[in-house]
Amino acid sequence: MSLPRFSGVLAPVITPFKDDLSPSAELLSSHCRWLLSQGAGLAVFGTNSEANSLNINEKRKLLDSLCEADIDPNRLMPGTGACALSDAVELTAHAVQLGCAGVLMLPPFYYKGVPDDGLYAFYSEVIQGVASDRLQIYLYHIPPVAQVGLSLALIERLCADYPDTVVGIKDSSGDWHHTQQLNELDIEDFRVFCGSETFLLQNMQAGGAGCISATANVNPTAIHDLYEYWDSSDADQKQEKLNQIRAIFQSYPMISALKAATGIYSGESSWMRVRPPLLPLSDEQQQNLRTELEQAAFQMPDI
Amino acid sequence: MSLPRFSGVLAPVITPFKDDLSPSAELLSSHCRWLLSQGAGLAVFGTNSEANSLNINEKRKLLDSLCEADIDPNRLMPGTGACALSDAVELTAHAVQLGCAGVLMLPPFYYKGVPDDGLYAFYSEVIQGVASDRLQIYLYHIPPVAQVGLSLALIERLCADYPDTVVGIKDSSGDWHHTQQLNELDIEDFRVFCGSETFLLQNMQAGGAGCISATANVNPTAIHDLYEYWDSSDADQKQEKLNQIRAIFQSYPMISALKAATGIYSGESSWMRVRPPLLPLSDEQQQNLRTELEQAAFQMPDI
Repeated sequence: MSLPRFSGVLAPVITPFKDDLSPSAELLSSHCRWLLSQGAGLAVFGTNSEANSLNINEKRKLLDSLCEADIDPNRLMPGTGACALSDAVELTAHAVQLGCAGVLMLPPFYYKGVPDDGLYAFYSEVIQGVASDRLQIYLYHIPPVAQVGLSLALIERLCADYPDTVVGIKDSSGDWHHTQQLNELDIEDFRVFCGSETFLLQNMQAGGAGCISATANVNPTAIHDLYEYWDSSDADQKQEKLNQIRAIFQSYPMISALKAATGIYSGESSWMRVRPPLLPLSDEQQQNLRTELEQAAFQMPDI
Repeated sequence: MSLPRFSGVLAPVITPFKDDLSPSAELLSSHCRWLLSQGAGLAVFGTNSEANSLNINEKRKLLDSLCEADIDPNRLMPGTGACALSDAVELTAHAVQLGCAGVLMLPPFYYKGVPDDGLYAFYSEVIQGVASDRLQIYLYHIPPVAQVGLSLALIERLCADYPDTVVGIKDSSGDWHHTQQLNELDIEDFRVFCGSETFLLQNMQAGGAGCISATANVNPTAIHDLYEYWDSSDADQKQEKLNQIRAIFQSYPMISALKAATGIYSGESSWMRVRPPLLPLSDEQQQNLRTELEQAAFQMPDI
């Protein structure tokens, strides 16, 4: 019996920090609850979560605390990829044990120019190390950041060898042509998520599963609306409006801008904090962001 | 009173794995002992140690076991940089507690294009988090792999603000001009190590401190000999001979080739193992490597 797979809009949930830069589990749960209420799934520990600035114990504890706060694990797709095989196995096993419906898995990203066979071996070792038929992996292709990407041949091989385990991909190549190629792969029920809502309409038209996008942290309602009504007559206008909002965020360091907006709209200023090597927006940047969002009639409802 | 600083030749010590891919502490200690006997210091947990394929608990335990095996911590410069600030603080503090005379510290390398101020904040948070006047950091500049480098301005700022803590650098830019610029910085007793023995003679002539080089795992004696006698009349020939051996290793995936040679010369075949995403040399590659090294009259003495 095959397990349900993800579709729709997921947010790589931003991670709030206390003044000592330790993660705030409470504020994270509350943001997750809000995202769920707006129709978004929870890709916690993504790139925009500063996941690679958190260590494995911090991620284990945050995941525990989300489940203790009654966040539905069926809506959780934590990022569990890591440079160290041992970390990837441990965090993935922990996510499965907690009942997370899927994991999003970066390739190991320190060593560059590694062969496909080596990346295959990595995913294969994780799958065998976790050894659970409840494990469902969504591959994470983000060459602009990780610098280590996943070739089409590697994806096909993993899906062929682990058809019930490797079930989808997030494509953050930023290249629509690549996302289209993923949608054209001859793999049964392979779930293709674009890494930005900029491509959401195209992805839905091409048979894709949805998007996992940074800006779903701040604009989930409108993104989910396009996902749900992508075949309606006003979809183009909705896409255009989404692009306009995204362009504002993209004109700042993205993660810091997402946190600044969340801080502004929620009134919780601790959201402004980021971990080094990232920097928070300056006061001037915050003010400009606020002005630009107001001019675009942007709001984060009920946060 | 300022603490002694490193100089000479250090090996980024290769990490042996058992058949379940867990690290072999015993074999690591024995290789370290051999390296020390050949004049090399121990930059364990470097790039060539597959350090980024090990998690923090594995690294903590290996460091403990080296000290328990009476490896002199004054000769240890473990790599303690990490993407996660929390990991970098924890492992660095542990190294200091064990008495390691220095640590080699990568910048956080997942997020790309981060500002110097963010990298400064990262190192600064580590230094303040460890809070020990026994901490001595050697920065690790390796843009070809990490993709995140350390600008001259950042290095000067860190040294100015933490003159007793930030005491040197390993330059693996592969660009001699850059190493020369580092040697010309106006920083008291700043120890510049080149990341390959290819530049050792030039680095010594420029006032550098030595080298921390992959091939010091297999050719430490000859590299140390050039370090010691760099101003003798036959230094050019020695440099040429080192380059010839290095070129052989560089024509293979470096880490796998270092391990293969160590396996061949020690008769301990478990050295051949690497962790994914790396792959071991094929049988044919191993045979070719052996032949090329024999033709170059290369040996690893007394291993």
